[in-house]
Amino acid sequence: MNTTKRTEISSLGEFGFIERLTKDIKPINKETIKGVGDDAAILQFDDSDEVLISTDLFMEGVHFDLTYFPLKHLGYKAVIANISDIYAMNGTPKQITVSLGISRKFCIEDVEELYSGIILACEQYGVDIVGGDTTSSLTGLAISITATGTAPKGTSVKRSGAKETDLICVTGNLGAAYMGLQLLEREKIATADKDMQPDFSGKEYILERQLKPEARKEIIEKLRNENVKPTAMMDISDGLASELMHICKQSGVGCRIYEERIPIDYQTAIMAEELNLNVITCALGGGEDYELLFTVPIADHEKVAAMKDVRVIGHIVSDTMGLALITRDGVEMQLKAQGWTPLEK
Amino acid sequence: MNTTKRTEISSLGEFGFIERLTKDIKPINKETIKGVGDDAAILQFDDSDEVLISTDLFMEGVHFDLTYFPLKHLGYKAVIANISDIYAMNGTPKQITVSLGISRKFCIEDVEELYSGIILACEQYGVDIVGGDTTSSLTGLAISITATGTAPKGTSVKRSGAKETDLICVTGNLGAAYMGLQLLEREKIATADKDMQPDFSGKEYILERQLKPEARKEIIEKLRNENVKPTAMMDISDGLASELMHICKQSGVGCRIYEERIPIDYQTAIMAEELNLNVITCALGGGEDYELLFTVPIADHEKVAAMKDVRVIGHIVSDTMGLALITRDGVEMQLKAQGWTPLEK
Repeated sequence: MNTTKRTEISSLGEFGFIERLTKDIKPINKETIKGVGDDAAILQFDDSDEVLISTDLFMEGVHFDLTYFPLKHLGYKAVIANISDIYAMNGTPKQITVSLGISRKFCIEDVEELYSGIILACEQYGVDIVGGDTTSSLTGLAISITATGTAPKGTSVKRSGAKETDLICVTGNLGAAYMGLQLLEREKIATADKDMQPDFSGKEYILERQLKPEARKEIIEKLRNENVKPTAMMDISDGLASELMHICKQSGVGCRIYEERIPIDYQTAIMAEELNLNVITCALGGGEDYELLFTVPIADHEKVAAMKDVRVIGHIVSDTMGLALITRDGVEMQLKAQGWTPLEK
Repeated sequence: MNTTKRTEISSLGEFGFIERLTKDIKPINKETIKGVGDDAAILQFDDSDEVLISTDLFMEGVHFDLTYFPLKHLGYKAVIANISDIYAMNGTPKQITVSLGISRKFCIEDVEELYSGIILACEQYGVDIVGGDTTSSLTGLAISITATGTAPKGTSVKRSGAKETDLICVTGNLGAAYMGLQLLEREKIATADKDMQPDFSGKEYILERQLKPEARKEIIEKLRNENVKPTAMMDISDGLASELMHICKQSGVGCRIYEERIPIDYQTAIMAEELNLNVITCALGGGEDYELLFTVPIADHEKVAAMKDVRVIGHIVSDTMGLALITRDGVEMQLKAQGWTPLEK
């Protein structure tokens, strides 16, 4: 360990830290089209399709709590988180590798349970498990998944292409996975050391969004069928505000989004009310929804407005105008990243 | 956790466990040429080169001990372990992704130190860092690296192609990295809580083999230049005996190797003597040498015999003859896997 100078990682935040680590990395191989800094890297071998590659690491106690997260669901979700990144590049996921670090508290049946969720997700999305590494860990469970996918040459969508006047769209609804997590945490405390059953009635949807999220495969297909190519796209794993900031920063633009346009399920709203939370803050900052956030040229307005499960929530403006949310009463609020940042937990 | 039936993972061993987990996995995408069960997966997109993909997970306390393993070296070694798998497929590594799980004991400078080793290895081997994930961990450090590489269509080499009468070759020498580890462990105990400096004089080579291993890039190039295509190949990360068993099992053959032909450096031999260990056992069972083990048709004998750093150590026989080591005094000993298996540590 370095003893001369110590800068705490939390002082930079997750994104600042990653930027500092990777700032000098310049690709040298001609096959590397786009490296660090998007949902997935873009590789191009000869004249074939573009190959996309994305990776995530999930650590017990940071990303999941096994007291309420069933192993099968965990396996399913870990795959979804990865292939969602491939869809967010406008690609089709094809393969994954799975590496597991397993402590002694787990038996074979546990790991099989985890694997059954991994396999189920792969079946659902037509993805092959092509390799991995299985090793022991001193404490807890570590899951590292890498996904590869393809996109026809020149069709993958980066975060950097949003332009002024583009429309900002999101799929599904936001904040539900975060509310599901709050519910699980509340019931965990309420039922600890007591013979109580947790009370989940009427809250099945937000639980499912936390415990069994899906990737937005059908939206990608719909966009392709309708001939709409997003100018920028990413998946919402850290929260809308944080992801919007990535797109705006990498595209060199600003944005305006409208509070009243942000899609929120009623179970999310009820749960926020119960917990005395501002539901818009939850929708902006809550992660793990794995919905898609994308921008399209204004000429595509009619097409996206007609699409089921797609909502136009605002538009791109010049970078000098900054990033803002327009509240229901017309006030302009500066957007702040309240992304779900495991590094600072 | 499963409470109905509990089978300890150690009861199956690492390879048995992986086999059980992956036995039902069948690739469905046409791009997946070869999935689980080799050094790397083989993917084929259109008519391009074959794309190879390989992944490893390193956990603190299992794969490395930071009391004597400098972070920069650790980063370097983690990359080598992965790209060695790509070379072992007869490929050229091109890209890696790097995922890190970092506990609070690490500061930014520590992670930069780790990264500097990762970057150095990438520069040495012409590899691009194209992505990753950086997250926190409750305890210790987790490093997950995935490497991609290419091989011209139809040229990648699997473990399954060895045939009767083929020659068995290894590169470099064996057991040195294991001896380096034993030395580091000895000095760690000897110098703990005392103001003593560890004594490494005359043992620089075995230390370097443990702390800064290299991948056998030049052998792959040499084989290509000499027009020798191995029938089976893998890298020696778990120990010669264990790797030979993989090749024989997957190829459906047996083998004979000769004690007197196994290449051992004199520092390895001296260290084994000091520690009262059988040096051949160490060479057969010690892992992390990242040398290549491969088989070639007997017609290539002259070519491989003339290659620097390549040693013919035996030959492939029918599977009914089993796997055996012929000792210096002509005794036939059954080969047993004494591979370095972190799962059973």
